[in-house]
Amino acid sequence: MNNFTFYSPTEFVFGKATEAQTGTLVKKYHGTKAMIVYGGGSVVRSGLLDKVKQSLTAAGIDYVELAGIQPNPTDPKVYEGIELGRKEHVDFMLPVGGGSVIDTAKAIAIGIPYEGDFWDFFIGKSVPQTGLPIGVVLTIPAAGSEGSGNAVITKLDGLRKLGIRTPEILRPVFAVMNPELTYTLSAWQTASGITDMMAHIMERYFSNTQGVEIADRMCEGVMKAIVNEAPRVMSEPDNYDARANIMWAGTVAHNGTCGVGCEEDWASHGLEHEISAIYDVTHGAGLAVIFPAWLTYAAKHNVGKVAQYAVRVWDVPESDDLQAVAMEGIARFKAFLHSIGMPVTLRELGIENPDIDLLVRKFHEDKGKVAGNYVHLDSQASREIYELAR
Amino acid sequence: MNNFTFYSPTEFVFGKATEAQTGTLVKKYHGTKAMIVYGGGSVVRSGLLDKVKQSLTAAGIDYVELAGIQPNPTDPKVYEGIELGRKEHVDFMLPVGGGSVIDTAKAIAIGIPYEGDFWDFFIGKSVPQTGLPIGVVLTIPAAGSEGSGNAVITKLDGLRKLGIRTPEILRPVFAVMNPELTYTLSAWQTASGITDMMAHIMERYFSNTQGVEIADRMCEGVMKAIVNEAPRVMSEPDNYDARANIMWAGTVAHNGTCGVGCEEDWASHGLEHEISAIYDVTHGAGLAVIFPAWLTYAAKHNVGKVAQYAVRVWDVPESDDLQAVAMEGIARFKAFLHSIGMPVTLRELGIENPDIDLLVRKFHEDKGKVAGNYVHLDSQASREIYELAR
Repeated sequence: MNNFTFYSPTEFVFGKATEAQTGTLVKKYHGTKAMIVYGGGSVVRSGLLDKVKQSLTAAGIDYVELAGIQPNPTDPKVYEGIELGRKEHVDFMLPVGGGSVIDTAKAIAIGIPYEGDFWDFFIGKSVPQTGLPIGVVLTIPAAGSEGSGNAVITKLDGLRKLGIRTPEILRPVFAVMNPELTYTLSAWQTASGITDMMAHIMERYFSNTQGVEIADRMCEGVMKAIVNEAPRVMSEPDNYDARANIMWAGTVAHNGTCGVGCEEDWASHGLEHEISAIYDVTHGAGLAVIFPAWLTYAAKHNVGKVAQYAVRVWDVPESDDLQAVAMEGIARFKAFLHSIGMPVTLRELGIENPDIDLLVRKFHEDKGKVAGNYVHLDSQASREIYELAR
Repeated sequence: MNNFTFYSPTEFVFGKATEAQTGTLVKKYHGTKAMIVYGGGSVVRSGLLDKVKQSLTAAGIDYVELAGIQPNPTDPKVYEGIELGRKEHVDFMLPVGGGSVIDTAKAIAIGIPYEGDFWDFFIGKSVPQTGLPIGVVLTIPAAGSEGSGNAVITKLDGLRKLGIRTPEILRPVFAVMNPELTYTLSAWQTASGITDMMAHIMERYFSNTQGVEIADRMCEGVMKAIVNEAPRVMSEPDNYDARANIMWAGTVAHNGTCGVGCEEDWASHGLEHEISAIYDVTHGAGLAVIFPAWLTYAAKHNVGKVAQYAVRVWDVPESDDLQAVAMEGIARFKAFLHSIGMPVTLRELGIENPDIDLLVRKFHEDKGKVAGNYVHLDSQASREIYELAR
């Protein structure tokens, strides 16, 4: 097991009607004027935005609004938010939504006090030293951004989708999580979220670090829970317990609970980011396409953990033929993805003629000559994975 | 699933040589003068105390010392610490040891700024409003106090062993956890710790709350990891990975990670506290005696979760005869406890003639007429469990 730090100071307030506590929580964490960040009409139509505003007003918190955040969030909204925040002297960021809304708020949080261009942080030109505190009202369980110190933004100029990780500054101080708020998510959004959280665990689980029994068993337990609850949440969208289990799984998948002491991989996320940056597909759906392809490549070159995953998560019977065990596990994973309505090939994702040269080139531009840890991907390997994903 | 708050703001710094970071961490959390609290000679003999002092000095942190904390810690040392802390204007508590040392430091931390008797907090006469920050250097994985907001102290006058729970004040700000520091623990201490952490998970796992798939799977995963690593840590006391897995399991067993959204039980801990208060036995060993007896009673009155535990943690084959499945699971749990050198009866614990009348009376004095949630224990039920434990 490797040395590690586990530090997850976010206060997660989970359950029915918890959005009513938003104002009190902003106040507890010293906010006086918040920027509410949200996406399209659903938080307006559902009445959630009004409830949040009422809660802020009741707690004596002033606010401004930044609406219209799109999936795969891009830099123009970040610049707009930074300008608004400076002009209005905002001291607290309050995203109400899913990962795209939260990540935009995070980028604004570090952009406001920074003299340079916020994009400096994403290209490694500068490191955030300070940021506004962030509190979240979560409506889409998927990205795990409510409990993570990460953010991902796409720069329109050049379509570069890049992530940063600065936990001490970017981790939300609180996250309000009411599973009822997720009842109205479409089947597509729900399934994409489920795929994203599975992927977050798998990026940690597929590791060559030895002696990590506790990490393995916890990852496997969370994956089992997701696999068991997914059919229920798809067939009964307003089943509270199913929604609640999936929602909490999305958080522990990405707040550091899973994978302690393991060298992580993250190549699949990088491979997917190129797809969603170029073709603007849903991140979770892109992962549904990439991860089976990556697993197929990984099983060929480093079968051990893939076989363990097949046995412990997918109940494949043990056998000495680890390759066969691994492939059966991958087949079951694909069948699971299909069962919740996810694509497992680029074609199924609607990309008939992927520009694989471009994908490979951009992937290695962003990640360097060799990416990934469980298996090392050079440009020949990443090409093979994109080809497997066709 | 019930509403819940998950808030675990402790910074866990885990791995080899991490004790060298102690001074830096005290400084980070604004300590200028620490009270080092420890037990007997082992932290002195091992050189750990010197390393911690050097680390404090290097970071410019002043300190005083409170030594001689015993297992099942009692009130006189708390009073001594409060007096010392006030006299020396200490602003940071630094326990170096296991649960007894940490809990003593926690009681001192809330006692110093309180005008009344610290015992008021334990008998519910008063609620802590403030306390000194606490940082931990952990040497015994067992109690989970390094990540919990709880403390347990025994009042010598009347032998009352009582606990309090005030997470916002009592949760350590950091915990340094180097598995190498646990190599020298005796087999008895190691096994008692393993039993204690298993019990912490079981108190949460045995719940009537429905729809808690994520909590169940995570609890089962951590228990599986403990059961798998225990034989390795007993036979190879200086196996780093085995020690590391057990050490982290002890933390997640009690910092809120396990059992989210579940009504918890805790009757077995109450039943055991009476035993260790009266007979001064090791808490973990007392739990090894009480928990199988409690499970046997629980299986008779509410078999569901006991059977699930048997199947998922102890690999008992599924069957329609849930009672038989449950009893086989309990038999395997007992065999496991024996295999690591734990007693499973009061007689094996060295208590030939337990005063069951006294145990029952004190248990209900402390916990009320009816205790526990998974099964409700009146005085007839608690008597039956103590009798089963003979």
